[in-house]
Amino acid sequence: MSLHHFDPIGPTSGQELPRYAGFATFARLPRFEDVAKVDVGILGVPFDAGVTYRPGARFGPSHIRQASRLLRSYNPVIELDPFREIQVADCGDVACNPFAIDEALVQIQAAVDSYLDAGTRLVVLGGDHTVALPVLRAIAKKHGPVAVVHFDAHLDTWDTYFGESYTHGSPFRRASEEGLIDRQASVHVGTRGPIYSADDLTADRNLGFTPIHVREFLRRPLDSIIEEILALVGTRPLYVSIDIDVLDPAHAPGTGTPEPGGLTSRELLEMIRAFAGANLVSADIVEVAPAYDHAEITGFAAASIAYELISVMASHSFGNQTNKTPGNDS
Amino acid sequence: MSLHHFDPIGPTSGQELPRYAGFATFARLPRFEDVAKVDVGILGVPFDAGVTYRPGARFGPSHIRQASRLLRSYNPVIELDPFREIQVADCGDVACNPFAIDEALVQIQAAVDSYLDAGTRLVVLGGDHTVALPVLRAIAKKHGPVAVVHFDAHLDTWDTYFGESYTHGSPFRRASEEGLIDRQASVHVGTRGPIYSADDLTADRNLGFTPIHVREFLRRPLDSIIEEILALVGTRPLYVSIDIDVLDPAHAPGTGTPEPGGLTSRELLEMIRAFAGANLVSADIVEVAPAYDHAEITGFAAASIAYELISVMASHSFGNQTNKTPGNDS
Amino acid sequence: MSLHHFDPIGPTSGQELPRYAGFATFARLPRFEDVAKVDVGILGVPFDAGVTYRPGARFGPSHIRQASRLLRSYNPVIELDPFREIQVADCGDVACNPFAIDEALVQIQAAVDSYLDAGTRLVVLGGDHTVALPVLRAIAKKHGPVAVVHFDAHLDTWDTYFGESYTHGSPFRRASEEGLIDRQASVHVGTRGPIYSADDLTADRNLGFTPIHVREFLRRPLDSIIEEILALVGTRPLYVSIDIDVLDPAHAPGTGTPEPGGLTSRELLEMIRAFAGANLVSADIVEVAPAYDHAEITGFAAASIAYELISVMASHSFGNQTNKTPGNDS
Amino acid sequence: MSLHHFDPIGPTSGQELPRYAGFATFARLPRFEDVAKVDVGILGVPFDAGVTYRPGARFGPSHIRQASRLLRSYNPVIELDPFREIQVADCGDVACNPFAIDEALVQIQAAVDSYLDAGTRLVVLGGDHTVALPVLRAIAKKHGPVAVVHFDAHLDTWDTYFGESYTHGSPFRRASEEGLIDRQASVHVGTRGPIYSADDLTADRNLGFTPIHVREFLRRPLDSIIEEILALVGTRPLYVSIDIDVLDPAHAPGTGTPEPGGLTSRELLEMIRAFAGANLVSADIVEVAPAYDHAEITGFAAASIAYELISVMASHSFGNQTNKTPGNDS
Amino acid sequence: MSLHHFDPIGPTSGQELPRYAGFATFARLPRFEDVAKVDVGILGVPFDAGVTYRPGARFGPSHIRQASRLLRSYNPVIELDPFREIQVADCGDVACNPFAIDEALVQIQAAVDSYLDAGTRLVVLGGDHTVALPVLRAIAKKHGPVAVVHFDAHLDTWDTYFGESYTHGSPFRRASEEGLIDRQASVHVGTRGPIYSADDLTADRNLGFTPIHVREFLRRPLDSIIEEILALVGTRPLYVSIDIDVLDPAHAPGTGTPEPGGLTSRELLEMIRAFAGANLVSADIVEVAPAYDHAEITGFAAASIAYELISVMASHSFGNQTNKTPGNDS
Amino acid sequence: MSLHHFDPIGPTSGQELPRYAGFATFARLPRFEDVAKVDVGILGVPFDAGVTYRPGARFGPSHIRQASRLLRSYNPVIELDPFREIQVADCGDVACNPFAIDEALVQIQAAVDSYLDAGTRLVVLGGDHTVALPVLRAIAKKHGPVAVVHFDAHLDTWDTYFGESYTHGSPFRRASEEGLIDRQASVHVGTRGPIYSADDLTADRNLGFTPIHVREFLRRPLDSIIEEILALVGTRPLYVSIDIDVLDPAHAPGTGTPEPGGLTSRELLEMIRAFAGANLVSADIVEVAPAYDHAEITGFAAASIAYELISVMASHSFGNQTNKTPGNDS
Repeated sequence: MSLHHFDPIGPTSGQELPRYAGFATFARLPRFEDVAKVDVGILGVPFDAGVTYRPGARFGPSHIRQASRLLRSYNPVIELDPFREIQVADCGDVACNPFAIDEALVQIQAAVDSYLDAGTRLVVLGGDHTVALPVLRAIAKKHGPVAVVHFDAHLDTWDTYFGESYTHGSPFRRASEEGLIDRQASVHVGTRGPIYSADDLTADRNLGFTPIHVREFLRRPLDSIIEEILALVGTRPLYVSIDIDVLDPAHAPGTGTPEPGGLTSRELLEMIRAFAGANLVSADIVEVAPAYDHAEITGFAAASIAYELISVMASHSFGNQTNKTPGNDS
Repeated sequence: MSLHHFDPIGPTSGQELPRYAGFATFARLPRFEDVAKVDVGILGVPFDAGVTYRPGARFGPSHIRQASRLLRSYNPVIELDPFREIQVADCGDVACNPFAIDEALVQIQAAVDSYLDAGTRLVVLGGDHTVALPVLRAIAKKHGPVAVVHFDAHLDTWDTYFGESYTHGSPFRRASEEGLIDRQASVHVGTRGPIYSADDLTADRNLGFTPIHVREFLRRPLDSIIEEILALVGTRPLYVSIDIDVLDPAHAPGTGTPEPGGLTSRELLEMIRAFAGANLVSADIVEVAPAYDHAEITGFAAASIAYELISVMASHSFGNQTNKTPGNDS
Repeated sequence: MSLHHFDPIGPTSGQELPRYAGFATFARLPRFEDVAKVDVGILGVPFDAGVTYRPGARFGPSHIRQASRLLRSYNPVIELDPFREIQVADCGDVACNPFAIDEALVQIQAAVDSYLDAGTRLVVLGGDHTVALPVLRAIAKKHGPVAVVHFDAHLDTWDTYFGESYTHGSPFRRASEEGLIDRQASVHVGTRGPIYSADDLTADRNLGFTPIHVREFLRRPLDSIIEEILALVGTRPLYVSIDIDVLDPAHAPGTGTPEPGGLTSRELLEMIRAFAGANLVSADIVEVAPAYDHAEITGFAAASIAYELISVMASHSFGNQTNKTPGNDS
Repeated sequence: MSLHHFDPIGPTSGQELPRYAGFATFARLPRFEDVAKVDVGILGVPFDAGVTYRPGARFGPSHIRQASRLLRSYNPVIELDPFREIQVADCGDVACNPFAIDEALVQIQAAVDSYLDAGTRLVVLGGDHTVALPVLRAIAKKHGPVAVVHFDAHLDTWDTYFGESYTHGSPFRRASEEGLIDRQASVHVGTRGPIYSADDLTADRNLGFTPIHVREFLRRPLDSIIEEILALVGTRPLYVSIDIDVLDPAHAPGTGTPEPGGLTSRELLEMIRAFAGANLVSADIVEVAPAYDHAEITGFAAASIAYELISVMASHSFGNQTNKTPGNDS
Repeated sequence: MSLHHFDPIGPTSGQELPRYAGFATFARLPRFEDVAKVDVGILGVPFDAGVTYRPGARFGPSHIRQASRLLRSYNPVIELDPFREIQVADCGDVACNPFAIDEALVQIQAAVDSYLDAGTRLVVLGGDHTVALPVLRAIAKKHGPVAVVHFDAHLDTWDTYFGESYTHGSPFRRASEEGLIDRQASVHVGTRGPIYSADDLTADRNLGFTPIHVREFLRRPLDSIIEEILALVGTRPLYVSIDIDVLDPAHAPGTGTPEPGGLTSRELLEMIRAFAGANLVSADIVEVAPAYDHAEITGFAAASIAYELISVMASHSFGNQTNKTPGNDS
Repeated sequence: MSLHHFDPIGPTSGQELPRYAGFATFARLPRFEDVAKVDVGILGVPFDAGVTYRPGARFGPSHIRQASRLLRSYNPVIELDPFREIQVADCGDVACNPFAIDEALVQIQAAVDSYLDAGTRLVVLGGDHTVALPVLRAIAKKHGPVAVVHFDAHLDTWDTYFGESYTHGSPFRRASEEGLIDRQASVHVGTRGPIYSADDLTADRNLGFTPIHVREFLRRPLDSIIEEILALVGTRPLYVSIDIDVLDPAHAPGTGTPEPGGLTSRELLEMIRAFAGANLVSADIVEVAPAYDHAEITGFAAASIAYELISVMASHSFGNQTNKTPGNDS
């Protein structure tokens, strides 16, 4: 039974229209304007003026939508069909100025504000990681400081770059400085690669983040890491921010600053599913740069991640607070 | 001034929403269901069960829509903005059975019938060349036998393949046999490459086609060829069918049976523009197989061809019968 | 010593003809017609009319043959040279109708029947997964119901698609319904991703399959999974069906319906080797779609899988029933 | 004999160090700082914050340098070895702010100013077309308004985009407004594709440009077009600006806004050579976006264009004012 | 009627076995050893140790064979089916030492000798251009000095490179020095790009070659060039050597030293057909480097070129001395 | 504090010049000739005449340099900034004869000798694995026989190929025969795939190598493997040779003889870091073949490996002998 009195409108059936056919909305779902009330919206933010190396994440939303055609409905691990439990819809893309970061930040936040005001939680498709800041501003305005679980090869708590405070390397420093995050319950997962100096780590911890270096995945059982994160987050409002480069370049070549030695998609998807039952207030998936993808594998990874995030949101809406113990297989 | 009492709804402005943003409808135009009356519709037919070599044209419509984001509005050669003259809209894709050619032919014709009945002319985006047959069936039902100008490396008047009568190699044989085409006014343009036997050419002529081999482009002025075609077609209702492989593989690698030695996109676009003022009742662009494309160049070519076809349709609607003499530059 | 009184004809030596040279038979082996008696044949089935998303597996056999040029002879894990123990040869490709699934199923089964009748076990190179059904029909005709170990991201026990009963999503439902498989000893390995509904899993179990979800690879030692499968299969006649999409898209991008979160090639190869000594009556490797491959990595994976399957067959022929305990390193 | 009392230092010989070896300076030439006086410098401007569609031209300079390894020395058409006649050197890249267009414009102009002050003419490697404006500002400061021959699919005389006056679509409007160009002697070559409105053309002419639409190449002998341009330019100081998208996407897929129907590289290279003897004060080649290139073909085209521009500069330095009549073959 | 008392064995029919199926022999023809007498053989020479820039032509023969699957039989321009007129077969690949150029030259010549002795003319598939020398040695041994029509962006009459006399840059210097070519009747077609010095051209002419620079294709009718070449060759025994880089990189990206500004495939194919009736004693197609190809377009170009060369050979065998005037269309 | 009285010159800052800008030296470091004393040099050896399958490693050095632009400075695992501790510089490429293996071996050794004589340790960027032999000759001349830790899918202790003793399949046989390696302390890591015969393994052990098959990574904790290697090596002078194909093709598609089932980049990077404190006298990274790479992922992997090797060298120079216990996370 759904939370709604009416049944949610789900994806176009693959039995009626082949999956490669039809307009590319996320997962072949209805558009925001085509349904009455949207519980979870997919919102594209095609903005990449904050990147420092390979650009192109502006094409991320359209690429992920195209890849999401393959998504079926029922989640056999979380054991629900999110598109039946809640109304999910595609909100299209925010129009943001490609030439003026400051203006774009305002545009993005305004759009997110309006969806949150309408009672819609969001899965944001970037765009580069700069976009996490205006999303968090809107989230914190509504929910107060939130626990942030940040999957990324990089810390993204650097300060300025070429004098610019708002780039894809700094959203979490700004967010912490602005009081948007819960400094007791925020974590980086999958960090790796050389950094600028040892001070980066100190500064990062001072900003309220606990880093989980990718090396730990070589030595700890996955469930131990999952449990550490879940314990940290608890029942707080949670925001999950996923830079696709947390995956190894083998799994996500289509990104701007790839870093070898990353997570597998198997690990990442399982970690996201573990949030089932948590109070996931919104999330983002950023830094998908299609020009460097091949065979759409980065796109499929991002679409699957979005699907699991939606499932997690559906599991909470559904009141399924009895989160399955991680590791209990379906 | 438009033909309509109301102004057509045109593409989303690139000043309001960057071209890489927003849902991918053809040229960022409205959907069919979002406007009152559609003069010209873009209809995807993602069907490729009729191919004999490299498949994948089922992804043609979504690929061309994505590439069409770059199209601007005003045609400086034909000297009009088609999206202002007439209402153009994206009709989405026909749902066709990927496993049963016969059923798919019926589905495609039914869809085309319904658009023609609504007074909408179509630019069909294939799919493989099999789809030209059901489109021609619908066209002929409405208009009687039509002049067909068929741009293609191949004759596509072969008979059966593995016992199957309806494949991408036979639509024009079937169409001629069924009386759908005007045998006095039909032409192949760009033919080349080895064929099965000398009899193919005889059979083809008996089916009512005049071939213009690609060698002629090495020796005749382009305008001489254009004039020959225009003279043949005259004021008859015209159907233009464009297999993207009429272009050289350099210009259109993303197709199933590439044939070296083809047209340049410069030649093809100019030939299409020359139909301005003709009575183009509908058209198709087929055999775009994105898996073999790179840098979207085949997609951009197909989108530009579609744009010129729409411009031609707009020029006629507009009553601009005084076709500019080819070669008179804007 | 070989099983034959005569020595098998092995691959062309890389010392006589560089590996990139010469006609592309599988592993540079002789063709079926060039040797007297063939113990194991490699049979291409270039058929992909049963696919629901990205097509192109029709080019799978030629792609895998090309990649198989790199295969050397001696298997240091199973500790034998399969091409010395038994006669292996390349049977070429089955001619199947690309437009009529029913006819193709008959053609494929007829070909497989004839090889089985000649005492040749097969490693079938697809083509899409539809081809597993006619192969199993021929296998069951000869061996009765067989244990099936099915490596795949998907269950492939769906029912119909667009009214068609025989597609790449349904071979194991049909096979179970037709009594071709041993319902006590069949297993899916590597299952993952969203499905249509919870009923899919119930139906699947009723059809006789035990699923091993890919999540288990995150939590159980590989040998535990291997032992579960070996215990299930026992000494039954065994058929192994490998959809290349059981591998993560990072390892096998060249396929039609990639699903993130899959096996590594290291895991898969090791699992196949563990069948050494089992009664592997035939096997297939399907869904290699070269248009989406890059650097031939999917081709190399498929060729290596085929090599391990052949090694397993050679280990049994050789009477090497004392299967090495998994985990005992060479 | 060289213009210098000392012999110019030329490229590293391919007989001493294979062409694929060694640091990638343009054409394996010395760096600016390694020679005493530089007649012509190659200056990279890796800036692409002004693009409206596919970004990535920031990687243009390194891509073109890599491709330029293949360039040999002697120009058999212009009949000189530019690297012997004059000192050519690689100036490296301008450091420009990727986040602030205004600041970048200042940085680029300052760099160009300094080279011009040192008596060095430049071949600028973009970067997007925005960079032409600061280059022209520096050029006009030194030479006064210059004749501009602008090869491009687009007019690049649009006004603002998202409120931004300085983008890759507006450099020549700004340049004309600022009095940097000679309005009697400036021309667009290769224009094509839809535009925003008929007014674009009027405005463009008012800004002082004569457009040569790509259609003319289908109907006029190439030498007729060359002569028209040379007549327009005369002996004025000349600036040549080449957007690589003037080439057809078949010849230059690696760019941001490809437009089918373009020039062949054969036509473009021949047109550039025709400037031999002209007073080419500097030039640019922009919009090479390597992420969309394949097999480096766009890179090779750009490197060859740069080579011909350098040859033209060498022909003038050398006092070879008796420009060969176009069409007189070497 | 064929020249043979028996009918030649032609390609496997595409009606019996789809073109993507079956072992990859050239054009699906029989192997040399499977037919009694071979008039024209396709001989692979997978050797690329003579290259100076991008290697990989060792994979040329297998790539061209794969692409040749698409070739149909009847040549509508020359008006014959070469596979019916004469027996054509695939000779497989020469085994040549990849590490020792001198030894490879001996191996190649020995192989060619043996085919010529058997009365088989050859279409050689390289490999790099080094292979033309041993082929010409064998040809001259049988026929005396031959007219050479050499299609190439480069002269290939350089002397030594890193002290090595036998590389892909020197075959025609060596051939001329060794008296293998007719110095009155040899020509380079399609030459372009910078060279080492003006002396290269003088030396080249002294070696007996007339260069036709690619610029001439911009100014002369194609038939004028064809007639110049045919007049030069006359009735002499003719050897045609085609470096695929004579094509523009747009048409043939898959090669080692691409040079912008080349021929179109339309021009090249037409020029080859013009040799119909000439005494073409053998030919080669070299420098296809598949790692840089995409969508197989270079492979298709090479396969089509080979087909036209075979047609030319068939036209002479058939006694069709009345060469059609170029330009008379079929 | 640095080992030097003067501060080392480090990489160009990404705050001054964006990472995509500037000449491509390794990690944007100074050139060898631009600094007084170099502790560790990066030396390119663009030589691939020893390969037996896919060539192209000659472009390895330039590809890795380009990818190394992304490297930042501080190593958070080893806890030092190598570019501050020691002077690292880019030595450019060795000029080696592409046609004569013997001559190239001499050229390479001479270059390495000269750097070692200058007190510079090297990280050599191949080129194919043939280059390890001349490097080891120089190393052993200076250090005596060294412990070799050889990461590779293959043993590379084969004997001859086509009669040639010096190829990419034989460097470690030659090195052992010549007494260059310490037979008590040398190891292959990551071995897998079929070999020529069982004798290969015996011969290999006789040459002094302990193989660690990739299967062990499925069953042993990574630290157990690390400890085995560290125990074997002890305090001996150590040479690490890394064939990029030790990585799975998913992680390193850009190589010549890919072998499925390999290491992840996460495993490999961690193993290298474990050498911190060891006496790493020099190292190589070979077999990066860029033509088969995509999205530069193989390049990024190689650059990161080189960075870790440099860090290891810096850790020893710094006198940091108290190697962190593997597994102690930063």
